[in-house]
Amino acid sequence: MGLKLVPIIIAIFLQLSTSQNAIGPSPKVDPTWDSIDARPLPAWYDDGKIGIFIHWGVYSVPSYINAWFWWSWLNDGSQAHDDFMKKNFAPGFSYEEFGPMFTAEFYDPDQWADLFQKSGAKYVVLTSKHHDGYALWPSSHGFAWNSMAVGPKRDLLGDLEQAIRKTEMHFGIYYSLLEWYQPLYVEETANNFTTDLFPTLKSIPTLKEVITKYRPDVVWSDGEWYAPSSYWGALDFLAWLYNDSPVKDTVVTNDRWGSETRGVHGGFYNFDDRYNPGVLIPHKWENAMSLDKREWTHRREAVIEDFLTPEELIEQIVVTVSCGGNILINVGPTKEGTIQVIQQERLLQMGEWLDVNGDAIYNTTPWEYTTSKTDSRIFAMTTSWPDTSILHMGAISASLTSRVEMLGYADVLQWVASPSNGGIDIFLPQMQRVRSKWAWTLVITPP
Amino acid sequence: MGLKLVPIIIAIFLQLSTSQNAIGPSPKVDPTWDSIDARPLPAWYDDGKIGIFIHWGVYSVPSYINAWFWWSWLNDGSQAHDDFMKKNFAPGFSYEEFGPMFTAEFYDPDQWADLFQKSGAKYVVLTSKHHDGYALWPSSHGFAWNSMAVGPKRDLLGDLEQAIRKTEMHFGIYYSLLEWYQPLYVEETANNFTTDLFPTLKSIPTLKEVITKYRPDVVWSDGEWYAPSSYWGALDFLAWLYNDSPVKDTVVTNDRWGSETRGVHGGFYNFDDRYNPGVLIPHKWENAMSLDKREWTHRREAVIEDFLTPEELIEQIVVTVSCGGNILINVGPTKEGTIQVIQQERLLQMGEWLDVNGDAIYNTTPWEYTTSKTDSRIFAMTTSWPDTSILHMGAISASLTSRVEMLGYADVLQWVASPSNGGIDIFLPQMQRVRSKWAWTLVITPP
Amino acid sequence: MGLKLVPIIIAIFLQLSTSQNAIGPSPKVDPTWDSIDARPLPAWYDDGKIGIFIHWGVYSVPSYINAWFWWSWLNDGSQAHDDFMKKNFAPGFSYEEFGPMFTAEFYDPDQWADLFQKSGAKYVVLTSKHHDGYALWPSSHGFAWNSMAVGPKRDLLGDLEQAIRKTEMHFGIYYSLLEWYQPLYVEETANNFTTDLFPTLKSIPTLKEVITKYRPDVVWSDGEWYAPSSYWGALDFLAWLYNDSPVKDTVVTNDRWGSETRGVHGGFYNFDDRYNPGVLIPHKWENAMSLDKREWTHRREAVIEDFLTPEELIEQIVVTVSCGGNILINVGPTKEGTIQVIQQERLLQMGEWLDVNGDAIYNTTPWEYTTSKTDSRIFAMTTSWPDTSILHMGAISASLTSRVEMLGYADVLQWVASPSNGGIDIFLPQMQRVRSKWAWTLVITPP
Amino acid sequence: MGLKLVPIIIAIFLQLSTSQNAIGPSPKVDPTWDSIDARPLPAWYDDGKIGIFIHWGVYSVPSYINAWFWWSWLNDGSQAHDDFMKKNFAPGFSYEEFGPMFTAEFYDPDQWADLFQKSGAKYVVLTSKHHDGYALWPSSHGFAWNSMAVGPKRDLLGDLEQAIRKTEMHFGIYYSLLEWYQPLYVEETANNFTTDLFPTLKSIPTLKEVITKYRPDVVWSDGEWYAPSSYWGALDFLAWLYNDSPVKDTVVTNDRWGSETRGVHGGFYNFDDRYNPGVLIPHKWENAMSLDKREWTHRREAVIEDFLTPEELIEQIVVTVSCGGNILINVGPTKEGTIQVIQQERLLQMGEWLDVNGDAIYNTTPWEYTTSKTDSRIFAMTTSWPDTSILHMGAISASLTSRVEMLGYADVLQWVASPSNGGIDIFLPQMQRVRSKWAWTLVITPP
Repeated sequence: MGLKLVPIIIAIFLQLSTSQNAIGPSPKVDPTWDSIDARPLPAWYDDGKIGIFIHWGVYSVPSYINAWFWWSWLNDGSQAHDDFMKKNFAPGFSYEEFGPMFTAEFYDPDQWADLFQKSGAKYVVLTSKHHDGYALWPSSHGFAWNSMAVGPKRDLLGDLEQAIRKTEMHFGIYYSLLEWYQPLYVEETANNFTTDLFPTLKSIPTLKEVITKYRPDVVWSDGEWYAPSSYWGALDFLAWLYNDSPVKDTVVTNDRWGSETRGVHGGFYNFDDRYNPGVLIPHKWENAMSLDKREWTHRREAVIEDFLTPEELIEQIVVTVSCGGNILINVGPTKEGTIQVIQQERLLQMGEWLDVNGDAIYNTTPWEYTTSKTDSRIFAMTTSWPDTSILHMGAISASLTSRVEMLGYADVLQWVASPSNGGIDIFLPQMQRVRSKWAWTLVITPP
Repeated sequence: MGLKLVPIIIAIFLQLSTSQNAIGPSPKVDPTWDSIDARPLPAWYDDGKIGIFIHWGVYSVPSYINAWFWWSWLNDGSQAHDDFMKKNFAPGFSYEEFGPMFTAEFYDPDQWADLFQKSGAKYVVLTSKHHDGYALWPSSHGFAWNSMAVGPKRDLLGDLEQAIRKTEMHFGIYYSLLEWYQPLYVEETANNFTTDLFPTLKSIPTLKEVITKYRPDVVWSDGEWYAPSSYWGALDFLAWLYNDSPVKDTVVTNDRWGSETRGVHGGFYNFDDRYNPGVLIPHKWENAMSLDKREWTHRREAVIEDFLTPEELIEQIVVTVSCGGNILINVGPTKEGTIQVIQQERLLQMGEWLDVNGDAIYNTTPWEYTTSKTDSRIFAMTTSWPDTSILHMGAISASLTSRVEMLGYADVLQWVASPSNGGIDIFLPQMQRVRSKWAWTLVITPP
Repeated sequence: MGLKLVPIIIAIFLQLSTSQNAIGPSPKVDPTWDSIDARPLPAWYDDGKIGIFIHWGVYSVPSYINAWFWWSWLNDGSQAHDDFMKKNFAPGFSYEEFGPMFTAEFYDPDQWADLFQKSGAKYVVLTSKHHDGYALWPSSHGFAWNSMAVGPKRDLLGDLEQAIRKTEMHFGIYYSLLEWYQPLYVEETANNFTTDLFPTLKSIPTLKEVITKYRPDVVWSDGEWYAPSSYWGALDFLAWLYNDSPVKDTVVTNDRWGSETRGVHGGFYNFDDRYNPGVLIPHKWENAMSLDKREWTHRREAVIEDFLTPEELIEQIVVTVSCGGNILINVGPTKEGTIQVIQQERLLQMGEWLDVNGDAIYNTTPWEYTTSKTDSRIFAMTTSWPDTSILHMGAISASLTSRVEMLGYADVLQWVASPSNGGIDIFLPQMQRVRSKWAWTLVITPP
Repeated sequence: MGLKLVPIIIAIFLQLSTSQNAIGPSPKVDPTWDSIDARPLPAWYDDGKIGIFIHWGVYSVPSYINAWFWWSWLNDGSQAHDDFMKKNFAPGFSYEEFGPMFTAEFYDPDQWADLFQKSGAKYVVLTSKHHDGYALWPSSHGFAWNSMAVGPKRDLLGDLEQAIRKTEMHFGIYYSLLEWYQPLYVEETANNFTTDLFPTLKSIPTLKEVITKYRPDVVWSDGEWYAPSSYWGALDFLAWLYNDSPVKDTVVTNDRWGSETRGVHGGFYNFDDRYNPGVLIPHKWENAMSLDKREWTHRREAVIEDFLTPEELIEQIVVTVSCGGNILINVGPTKEGTIQVIQQERLLQMGEWLDVNGDAIYNTTPWEYTTSKTDSRIFAMTTSWPDTSILHMGAISASLTSRVEMLGYADVLQWVASPSNGGIDIFLPQMQRVRSKWAWTLVITPP
């Protein structure tokens, strides 16, 4: 990870009123980037801040090293993958043959939904189809390679959708445009994408099917990188999504629609995985990261050191949101359909923290240091409690009548103007009397 | 079976010269039935008479009851299939999950080719893709459902093709136009075939691929019955096959190209499975039957009574060929890739018989009772040896100078004009001195 | 095999009356070889002549090369076994892990019994426990390594016993005294059998259990060769068997009770596997052989050439019985519980032959050439039909009033005293009029 | 769990010198309880306080509900077990067939040893053989039911022993005297233990084997409850263990040697599982408990709420040790050989705590409230930090010259004699400046 958060204070505005970007029926878009990029982002997304990402699929069977198991093994010639296969399987065992071992016998989507709800997340994004092409629903465009045909014999996606809809969370899908070993795709990779049978016949029809059937509020595209958006037919698809799909008014998408689109076109920007710039970004963005610091899928060999500590997790949330991002926090369920207990613990720790500090996260907009004074409440967070119990906030030039409080603590805090270098010095309470752990939020209410 | 062969003599002409229907480069055909039906059948096919049919695929894994296992189980609601699955597999086990169990670890295509060669067959037809859609080669139009991806991890079709090409036999493929559970096909079944995405995108491209790649001399179509030939695009396909494919000059096809075509259009006629009319048919036809009297796939529960005896098998051959048919004799290999020993035995018994009697089978044309006298050698066969050792042939009015012999016996036979009812009475030799078993061939050479 | 049967005639006495060695309650035996060897053999065994041997167990799972799979692989370092394991299984796969794959899902003991009955056999001997130690019944002296615990989850032995008892056949068991990898046995092999914990605690108690529970009429011992009968406690065991067991009056045993006992002590003599001396042996013996010329277990790689032809099988029977032996004909069922169709065919062919020729086999005693004339009917067999249809019998000096017939043919045969070298010349009927195949029996009835 | 710890202070003596019960070569014991019970406990055990218990075996394959899976399913008729089997396995699947699925492919005993070392534990006890009889080593008294024969194909026990011996920890074994389904045991259960073949032939020889081979310092007996110690031959075994075994001078045992021995005879007392009396017990005892509050084996369905929190775990340790007990903390590895990450986290949290507070745990003896004043350092622990930061210790009547400190905090603490009710009031430092979490230790050094 290597996150180095030098300053101990991060400031965030409370949003004064309800979302200013609440939208009515979306206006029609044209299949041009100008028109598509101009579509306002539905407000629920920016308000929610925190989503759960779920990487679950056939790679959860080997559950070793990475979700790109198939590719690393066959294309990257990874020694570790090859050793693993040679040691544990008969010669000739193929990745496809992991399919029947994807059993999901303990899968309880209501239990998952309950956990995600308790974590404080506001939306959930499941890998409907990853780069291996395996669909988590009975796709009409796949055959013998989806969760109803092989393995769970269950509509994994549909069952989670149902469970999520019983909560207030939004349901979303991850979808890989490419499929590493789909013969048409392989062919068009070889011909430098001069034909587009794969998107036309397979990838886009499948994507439309899953959207039509499960009505996701997030369409989280991926696997776009080798080919331009024109190959993928992205403009037409997005125009359909925003004009004609059943989720046209609520759906958000990201920026992975072609080799030229990341950080440039689409909905919110994901840039690369685990993008976390540390500075405020003008366009809405999202930090897609994972509780497992290395990987997206459940790895059987992972050890405690591989997981974010609660402190690290909460610091990631705070930094991301303060820079204008949403955070999409990945869990990697097991092939049996359980969420690893350490990941349950982290999500509940996050929920415990948000239960106290959520006011400073949800429905907020980041404070721009360059803007002038505001009449909103300001939330300031710290992840380290000073030995002296006196916290110095340099960026704030509070008026004498401002009220300073700490979330999770009942009383008003004393403070003084900082004698030396501006800002204020706040006298913290006795630590054991504050309900919060891992990070603490100061609330400064203007007079 | 129910074959009732009342007359003990069946007569067959020896073809006087080499095939009269030997053809040079085929003339171009138009995509009309008139043009297609007018294409002469390449001579090798009628000359060869005897082919081997091979049903091998994922149904060879349950290897129980029938090759239509999937359909009987899921669509016909067969109790026996359901009981079998319930008794032997965990709940939810799917047909697709038989795929990885299709191991083929003993598959030795040269051994197969050697056996077929010894059986006396002149061509071999393998199920390249049956109704379950599983391809025995690494198809570019399939994915995770072919023999390279799941199960054998081997190009079963290609390896057999190579082995057959080392012999004098012709190589052919069976190909099911339909795929029971292919989503597009299922959809178009429901819409009464008013669209044709399945043939256009999947079925015909796959068929062209397999032909282009493996250059089969037989394209044995099946699975056509629910939809008209127009749905399948049969005319265009056949025009391509006869004009542009790599096998345009040598390939033969059958008559299963649409719900209206059996016995009407195409190449040779298969009519229904196990068709054996017992009378001479003017159009070239083929009797596709199986060593297992009930089924096409290897069935683990089959008992000796289920298999044709050598007598029955040879009677089938004799009757079929004498009525103008070719015979396509099916074997059902095991999932391991072996041919059941009883089937080996039958094929070798057939070869043993043909080794003696083959002159009366290969390169012959059936004798028309209505034609007048001929100057060709006539072959007459019997499957029962009279207690008296005097064989009466009613249909033959031989001249006194004709010579009568028996294949597998060195000396000329004595005969007399039949005193009572015309024809001739032939004095057979001592049975133990004749090399043939199961059926015997008399050869009458005109003076 | 290498059977060379030069003379074409083999002569056998019909037993004049019912078995002369019918016995009442057996006298007590002492635990000495003198006493044990003196026990008369129960008559049913010599009368029956023909038994079925069944090798079935965990080795039926790899079903490759031999029943000694485990030993060949691990102790003999067979390359073929090692290659097979390396090619088809994950590293470290152990023989014990074949256990759960021994499914027996098609096992129908009544069907087996019916087949054996139709084959003409009079007793059936099943491998209750082979050298791998796996018991085909829920043994109280085994654990996690028997057919109730692992694999079939069924009392395979008990179920066959029940089925056989519904017929007139006798039920018997094969039992291996040794168990290759039983830790106590391994230890005592290493200590040169100076202690006897394995027979005392494991092998003999288990054998007594299976006898007490299933009351077999044949106890076919094996695996004795490395240790003397004193190690195995054979004398005490046999005294128990003949004096106190529930089968004391009907049971027969063989001669494999210690490294020094083959052909010397015990009941009938087996000598080595496939023993067939070609001459009359004064002590009752048994030829244990197999339809598969090479092996005892079902081998998936076996081809038709590996099996005895009907001619070879019947010749074996004739030669064995004519030399005073019983014949124990082995079948190797599959792991699924079926008897391979080619083996069904051979057994039924044998039954078809015995149906015509059985009078010359059952309840007979071999004719001693050295004995003088007899007033019994003499059966003489030939496996080749002379081209001339005149059969010369040199050994017989028949009186002019003897009647000569052939089994399967209605009329009396003509014969003459042989002009040249003694014996008689018999004029055979037309071959097609005799019901028998493969071998023919002449019956000479004294005047 | 339901642990209710009302008093917030628990007092523990520091042991003044090195263990007073250090022993030289043990004196010989007689096979009587008097003699055995009189044997002094080797000092390392009481000094070490904290051990790791490991439940690992074939039950780690279903990994569902409990380690008694086999018994609950077959003997208790548990609906949940039955449902699980019916839903997930083919009919007839047996517990023994889980054996080959016990793969242990990620087992790294050095990694385990490192984790246990970091946890602060001083000994490790592995289930060498649980009630299902499966041995984690290649036992000479088992067959086809141990980790070398079936599943891991590895000496799991030996490999852990080697790894533990590289550290300072002591290695021990758990051993179940009974085996639920061992036929001899089943028989003797039925005959009310009137014979003792099972202990004589199987259970005790196997136990001696594992001790001789792996020299464990803990022999943790179990499964004794149905039969008296006389059945198990406990006195003779323990005499052997203490007089003749390779670990006679270092080994400790528990009190599970017969239905009458718990809390009465043997070495330390375990009483029942999770025994934790809450009061000081005069005989050395051990609290065997588990990180999973419900069970000993890894359960795939377990959720975060099923695990002890760090606070609960440390409270258990403190209470147990303060009452004279050792604590044996169980982890349940997966069938793959990994230790679940949440369990890793708890062990490391424990290690983190002991790193600061270990002086108060190791090599200590509990303080007897009834004893008079002492000149040793006293350790007092609390698991709750008072809101006021003033901690009242009622039991201590400190002299004015005593020094009061807190482990994990550098400076001396202020205190005053409690004005009201005796004892002292200690002024705690600012919480954020103390290195300890979850529980805190005060150290009172007498003047």
